[in-house]
Amino acid sequence: MPHYVVRQIDRADTSVVDALAEYGVATVHEAAGRTGLVGASVLPRQDGAAVSGSAVTVSSHPGDNLMIHAAVEVCQPGDVLVVTTTSPSVHGMFGDLLATSLMSRGVRGLVIDAGVRDIATLREMGFPVWSRAVHAQGTVKATPGSVNVPVVCDGQLVNPGDVVVADDDGVMIVPRADAATVLAAAEKRTANEESKRERLAGGTLGVDMYTLRPLLSDLGVEYVDRLPEGR
Amino acid sequence: MPHYVVRQIDRADTSVVDALAEYGVATVHEAAGRTGLVGASVLPRQDGAAVSGSAVTVSSHPGDNLMIHAAVEVCQPGDVLVVTTTSPSVHGMFGDLLATSLMSRGVRGLVIDAGVRDIATLREMGFPVWSRAVHAQGTVKATPGSVNVPVVCDGQLVNPGDVVVADDDGVMIVPRADAATVLAAAEKRTANEESKRERLAGGTLGVDMYTLRPLLSDLGVEYVDRLPEGR
Amino acid sequence: MPHYVVRQIDRADTSVVDALAEYGVATVHEAAGRTGLVGASVLPRQDGAAVSGSAVTVSSHPGDNLMIHAAVEVCQPGDVLVVTTTSPSVHGMFGDLLATSLMSRGVRGLVIDAGVRDIATLREMGFPVWSRAVHAQGTVKATPGSVNVPVVCDGQLVNPGDVVVADDDGVMIVPRADAATVLAAAEKRTANEESKRERLAGGTLGVDMYTLRPLLSDLGVEYVDRLPEGR
Amino acid sequence: MPHYVVRQIDRADTSVVDALAEYGVATVHEAAGRTGLVGASVLPRQDGAAVSGSAVTVSSHPGDNLMIHAAVEVCQPGDVLVVTTTSPSVHGMFGDLLATSLMSRGVRGLVIDAGVRDIATLREMGFPVWSRAVHAQGTVKATPGSVNVPVVCDGQLVNPGDVVVADDDGVMIVPRADAATVLAAAEKRTANEESKRERLAGGTLGVDMYTLRPLLSDLGVEYVDRLPEGR
Amino acid sequence: MPHYVVRQIDRADTSVVDALAEYGVATVHEAAGRTGLVGASVLPRQDGAAVSGSAVTVSSHPGDNLMIHAAVEVCQPGDVLVVTTTSPSVHGMFGDLLATSLMSRGVRGLVIDAGVRDIATLREMGFPVWSRAVHAQGTVKATPGSVNVPVVCDGQLVNPGDVVVADDDGVMIVPRADAATVLAAAEKRTANEESKRERLAGGTLGVDMYTLRPLLSDLGVEYVDRLPEGR
Amino acid sequence: MPHYVVRQIDRADTSVVDALAEYGVATVHEAAGRTGLVGASVLPRQDGAAVSGSAVTVSSHPGDNLMIHAAVEVCQPGDVLVVTTTSPSVHGMFGDLLATSLMSRGVRGLVIDAGVRDIATLREMGFPVWSRAVHAQGTVKATPGSVNVPVVCDGQLVNPGDVVVADDDGVMIVPRADAATVLAAAEKRTANEESKRERLAGGTLGVDMYTLRPLLSDLGVEYVDRLPEGR
Repeated sequence: MPHYVVRQIDRADTSVVDALAEYGVATVHEAAGRTGLVGASVLPRQDGAAVSGSAVTVSSHPGDNLMIHAAVEVCQPGDVLVVTTTSPSVHGMFGDLLATSLMSRGVRGLVIDAGVRDIATLREMGFPVWSRAVHAQGTVKATPGSVNVPVVCDGQLVNPGDVVVADDDGVMIVPRADAATVLAAAEKRTANEESKRERLAGGTLGVDMYTLRPLLSDLGVEYVDRLPEGR
Repeated sequence: MPHYVVRQIDRADTSVVDALAEYGVATVHEAAGRTGLVGASVLPRQDGAAVSGSAVTVSSHPGDNLMIHAAVEVCQPGDVLVVTTTSPSVHGMFGDLLATSLMSRGVRGLVIDAGVRDIATLREMGFPVWSRAVHAQGTVKATPGSVNVPVVCDGQLVNPGDVVVADDDGVMIVPRADAATVLAAAEKRTANEESKRERLAGGTLGVDMYTLRPLLSDLGVEYVDRLPEGR
Repeated sequence: MPHYVVRQIDRADTSVVDALAEYGVATVHEAAGRTGLVGASVLPRQDGAAVSGSAVTVSSHPGDNLMIHAAVEVCQPGDVLVVTTTSPSVHGMFGDLLATSLMSRGVRGLVIDAGVRDIATLREMGFPVWSRAVHAQGTVKATPGSVNVPVVCDGQLVNPGDVVVADDDGVMIVPRADAATVLAAAEKRTANEESKRERLAGGTLGVDMYTLRPLLSDLGVEYVDRLPEGR
Repeated sequence: MPHYVVRQIDRADTSVVDALAEYGVATVHEAAGRTGLVGASVLPRQDGAAVSGSAVTVSSHPGDNLMIHAAVEVCQPGDVLVVTTTSPSVHGMFGDLLATSLMSRGVRGLVIDAGVRDIATLREMGFPVWSRAVHAQGTVKATPGSVNVPVVCDGQLVNPGDVVVADDDGVMIVPRADAATVLAAAEKRTANEESKRERLAGGTLGVDMYTLRPLLSDLGVEYVDRLPEGR
Repeated sequence: MPHYVVRQIDRADTSVVDALAEYGVATVHEAAGRTGLVGASVLPRQDGAAVSGSAVTVSSHPGDNLMIHAAVEVCQPGDVLVVTTTSPSVHGMFGDLLATSLMSRGVRGLVIDAGVRDIATLREMGFPVWSRAVHAQGTVKATPGSVNVPVVCDGQLVNPGDVVVADDDGVMIVPRADAATVLAAAEKRTANEESKRERLAGGTLGVDMYTLRPLLSDLGVEYVDRLPEGR
Repeated sequence: MPHYVVRQIDRADTSVVDALAEYGVATVHEAAGRTGLVGASVLPRQDGAAVSGSAVTVSSHPGDNLMIHAAVEVCQPGDVLVVTTTSPSVHGMFGDLLATSLMSRGVRGLVIDAGVRDIATLREMGFPVWSRAVHAQGTVKATPGSVNVPVVCDGQLVNPGDVVVADDDGVMIVPRADAATVLAAAEKRTANEESKRERLAGGTLGVDMYTLRPLLSDLGVEYVDRLPEGR
């Protein structure tokens, strides 16, 4: 297959991208119909960071960061870099020099299904990272790959220009075309959740608030004072 | 098998439950004869939290939190909720709304062999969680399960009413009937450890303090200045 | 095979050992020709600790810390203890008492391909640990092993007296005989990196700074404005 | 905790135990209300073996097979040995000599949440094994454990005397007291399945046979000729 | 998100689909430019099976096989069913009854990123399966999902109608639109490989046949009779 | 670090190497003092193969088989190729063409801590493989590595010229210098085991044959008819 660096991608409206960060991964995931989550193995490598941005994607050979360097040039302010490899890897493909380069271009963070290093420096720099591992294994620059092609990151398809939302809960991908719709749904859900939170805090039970008692009954769940003998 | 929500369970004395938290997971585990530990994959999701409580148990279908809602009603102040699934799962079955509900009933924390979400909010709320994963994948409410039946949580049997002790070292289960005995053993062990700590800090070697030299000799361990050639 | 406690090992010069800590795991790894890393499963159990020291090695039976006690006696100020087991294990082989004992001898930290416990206390004591797990499962003292023999720690060979460098990025092993050479290479690399960092911060692209454009061209990577149809 | 070798356990009726093997793991699991499965990491180490028997249980220290030797004496013809360790392990705790010993007592197979070795010989001997690993790492005989106490095997509670059913699908535990009831349910289910199989083979759809169309409709699943644009 | 059962999908030419099976996973993967492989955790559950077919895709809730039943109706002779779940799962979602149903419709096999059961029967029936696990855990029919939407199977995007090639090496996905091109490339590659095989069998070295010596030299690889001292 | 292809290595006596295959992995491991095992993640990819040979070692970049090609030239009849990567990988680095090349030089098998492909053909060819995975992901030839340097394979140090013994139990490494001694120990152990096997087959208990009853008593293991109440 030919390898490409695609220079131009379509991005969602900046105002939409930015607003999605306010709602966070869990709410946006629900607003997107419970789709779009990157798997649970790509973890935040700092506490409290919460960003959103447009995905610039990289498909690399394991242990080779040539294409990450190639990707920097096509990044714009407000982007988030999403890096994948052609087979599972924890090689330390990314460190403080690449972060410096990305920050100089206004990139907001990195999502990488592989390893990173210089993690203490990255935290000091305030460059947030979500990765499969922290591992210092040094990389080469020898093998072709592609920039801004569709990639799969820990089980989640990411198209270039999709909106990335990332925080302590992990990483969420919103298809670019759905961003505005999902934002609206997130706003609605959040308003709705606030009243639920108050009722639950006041002692209302979820089984009543969500009217779950008929369902429990239909499903044959029995309420008993004591577990029957022999169960 | 029928599914039950069991309303009443026997709990250990509050004073005993509370006192066990003081000793922490490692000491209580030793006091319990080196039994009772939940496996090393259920991890604290905050630093420094240390709680104990009576186990209210939940057995759920993966990705379905209906039975967690059903469990809230039978929780009392001082309880810890213990949630398991019928096959391995990292689905995000628990978030800030359920935590709000549990806190309103005086529940002290959650131990879950699955995923949680809204982790930043849970930390802000001060609701401690021990879980297999942080993952935001949204759940359904569609499948029956049981509350307050015996469950296995990452390799450890938990009966309803057992004492849960959880801190930075993980999670420990003390059978309800053994709680007072284990507490007494923990007190004794701690007193004993203090003097050991002082001796070790003063330079006494463990091999002398525990009289291990004869054992090392019996086991054929040889002390040599240099490793013999070819080894 | 006979089991040994080897009392005397050769160590690198203290000044070299200490200086390596300044450069950190990633830089030292590069300076050592991209060799020497302990695998990504042995993780720091605290934030921000950075140590170096001479390796005192332990080969233990799983769940048995007898040989760790035997190792304390042969440790010297400036050492780092490196513990491995004869098959994979997360048993909690190390806690605050052993840390107290090691600190009284000037040992700087622990690298263990198994579990530790009392982690909150270890953090308070300022005794840094890199481990495969935090798990409280109690150990026995019943089985022979060896101290100061070559061991493999998460995929990395460690000879007694090798230099251990450990920080937030993980753990790095420098063969004793190479320590001075590696230090010199680390110094050189760091000087070199500083100017690179400045250029990248100023907007210079890595593809230009490292002259990667000809390589990308040779490898057949095509720059396109848009991804060709059907790709 | 004291360690015990319990000599006498209650077993289910031989005729019931034997009959359960006919139905196999999947059917017996359904007949037991979808409970009782040992986790998916304990795998058959041969093709086509299918056994049932009464559980004699062992709790061992990792890498120590002393208690397996102690268990042989309390085994009877028709038993299946179930071995667990106090923390996760793949140590090779079982080989052809122990199999020879168990076969001489009429034991029908081994379920072990750890490693086995001599696997080629075990296959030749016709002694079936379900294990977490095949690994030859040699064991010691140095640490106490217990025989015929409740154990947890890859997530499943096993009480001594419970019925073990094991085949290519894995391992299933039926509580002793439920064995006859489960057998009756398995018989009923099998009869029922046969007619289902014929109908499905004849082209009847599961959505019709199980009347799932109304459910799909209630759940909001839409039948469409083509996926709507943008989905 | 709404859930759909999509009745009509475009499929590649039958002759192309069938011919791809002849070349097998490894060759087709190379012919497709080294793309398209399902991850290494989805394994063949029988020896020697080799099939190809058009993908009918299923996205299910973990432990719920409702949508597999819904999928049967839209399968045609020559299809391969590809099943995924919304979070990682080894639940036993598929057994001999579903296989009977699929065989009656001419479906050639199953690729499932979850568990299967009745594996001995599936082998007898000659219905080939590639799965993440063999596990008998029983499922429910309670939660909506979709049929014939794009899914990700162990890291690989699968669109409905893509060509699935599966054998002892694993599972390969060829985009429908590329099928003819990939087939042509596979034919060419195979012809080419045959002559290589003969030369290598005759003693020609790969470093000569592929002219790798200049590359090795350029990369700085040194040929030495003995490893230099200290390396 | 410079990269080397080392042409000449010392090998153990052919007669010793060959004889070790007769004893198999488990016996040779015991004869070597319970050392030398490759980890349990490198598995046989066929049934019943049992080989021994002299290790020719390869250290490769992940997903790059250039150095395997370079290694072929230095292999001799009776060798076994041992391949490792600089970070964990399941890339399919080895297939039937390389096997053809190795067989033409008399190489007896492959041990690889990564992936292989063309597994059906490898089985037909009778070329035995022990690997971490079967995965077809295609490799490049772009990055330097070394041949005949010390490597670590799934936790086990392998020096060039060490004896590799591999069978259904896994892979064992005997240091070249110890080969004759280990062979003698294996012979002795086997003779000894035969009489043990006969006694155990005849009904003698291991606790008697190994005189374990006093040890069990010393360790505080109590023999009881029934488990005490509350345990």
